[in-house]
Amino acid sequence: MTYCVGLLLNEGMVCLSDTRTNAGLDNIATYRKMFHFVDEGERVITIMTAGSLSVTQTTIARLREAVDDADATEATSIMKAPTLLKVASIIGETLAAVRLEVNEKLSAAQASASASMIMAGQRKGGAMRLFLIYPEGNFIEATEDTPFLQIGEHKYGKPILDRVVKPNTSLADAEKAVLLSMDSTLRSNLSVGMPLDLCIIERDACKVSRTRRIEPGDAAFRAMSEGWSKALRDGFLQITL
Amino acid sequence: MTYCVGLLLNEGMVCLSDTRTNAGLDNIATYRKMFHFVDEGERVITIMTAGSLSVTQTTIARLREAVDDADATEATSIMKAPTLLKVASIIGETLAAVRLEVNEKLSAAQASASASMIMAGQRKGGAMRLFLIYPEGNFIEATEDTPFLQIGEHKYGKPILDRVVKPNTSLADAEKAVLLSMDSTLRSNLSVGMPLDLCIIERDACKVSRTRRIEPGDAAFRAMSEGWSKALRDGFLQITL
Repeated sequence: MTYCVGLLLNEGMVCLSDTRTNAGLDNIATYRKMFHFVDEGERVITIMTAGSLSVTQTTIARLREAVDDADATEATSIMKAPTLLKVASIIGETLAAVRLEVNEKLSAAQASASASMIMAGQRKGGAMRLFLIYPEGNFIEATEDTPFLQIGEHKYGKPILDRVVKPNTSLADAEKAVLLSMDSTLRSNLSVGMPLDLCIIERDACKVSRTRRIEPGDAAFRAMSEGWSKALRDGFLQITL
Repeated sequence: MTYCVGLLLNEGMVCLSDTRTNAGLDNIATYRKMFHFVDEGERVITIMTAGSLSVTQTTIARLREAVDDADATEATSIMKAPTLLKVASIIGETLAAVRLEVNEKLSAAQASASASMIMAGQRKGGAMRLFLIYPEGNFIEATEDTPFLQIGEHKYGKPILDRVVKPNTSLADAEKAVLLSMDSTLRSNLSVGMPLDLCIIERDACKVSRTRRIEPGDAAFRAMSEGWSKALRDGFLQITL
């Protein structure tokens, strides 16, 4: 499995993904699940993926090919599409088409593959937008009421987001929130694993303002994780029934 | 859905269940999911249920009938069975049989029903034991390494249990831990709802030492929930990246 989370805040967007993939418990590997498409100052698009690797890799590869194609048009390239809604639509159509092709191959084995994606993006002069794209190609968008979207193993890390994340949360607090959300997921579910990929997209920058890869031995992450454990234990002790 | 959790600790066992059942989002009802079978000082058995209500109600009714039957034997009654392993086996067989019957009726509609259970019990002179019984009738048992078992919507409330619950956790802390685990679940998942049923089975008492029903307006629960929210927020603020 996977855990990816995206936040849409007044100050910008924050994305975090793990890197564990597995075909059965005895076949575990590390793959990047966060992909950036950037025309600095003009357009930034970050895509995170969950689900069958054969589907997500092919989808990302096709999106990239369409962008690099000499004949790329507004209808085919997510870097030329006139709106982010259209970007979400191109991603959704590509994902759904790849999924159908892969499932046709798998049908003989009575197996099936699926995938979903989160897309965070902004065009120059436009608003920041955050979408969750379903395996069928349809999608939903984050709003003020629901400023975060998750894919994969989303349940363990949802309580902290439910309590902490609001549109006016600062980017620093947001980074902390998604890392703690991931920390809870890592502790409780083996199918989600380090290293982690984090990115911050500041409002109106139209670029990836900062990326951070967190390796298993990352001292800062470990300190944060231990600090949170201690805070939870201390908080727990203070609670009276 | 449902959320039920059972803890097996040195000092005793703690069980907590919600009461929400739903057949679709537009058909929500309240049903007790915790059932006690007690021969005070001799034997205590608490069963919690998750899954299709038609399966769980019939299973509990049959177990009760078998106990009350004038011809009850060690092989049919969970109150006469010589060991708790045998009790788990009777519950598992009854559950699996009911599930098959119900699914036969549902097969025409291409629907299916399933259920799982947690059983906490002790016989006079025996050890406390905590089992999770699967829809197929097989079961697993809590151990020192894994002193808690969950059924239903278990993911939201698992991180707090993973961090806090050890075999030497006191019963008071354990009560707090399961209530906070439930609190996280209630906040993040609509299919789990109040009122809650809690019970404490003290070691070697062979009775239900204490029960508590927590209604939606319960002041103590609300205070605990708000205290925990505050502790989480304060802890969150203290964490540095």
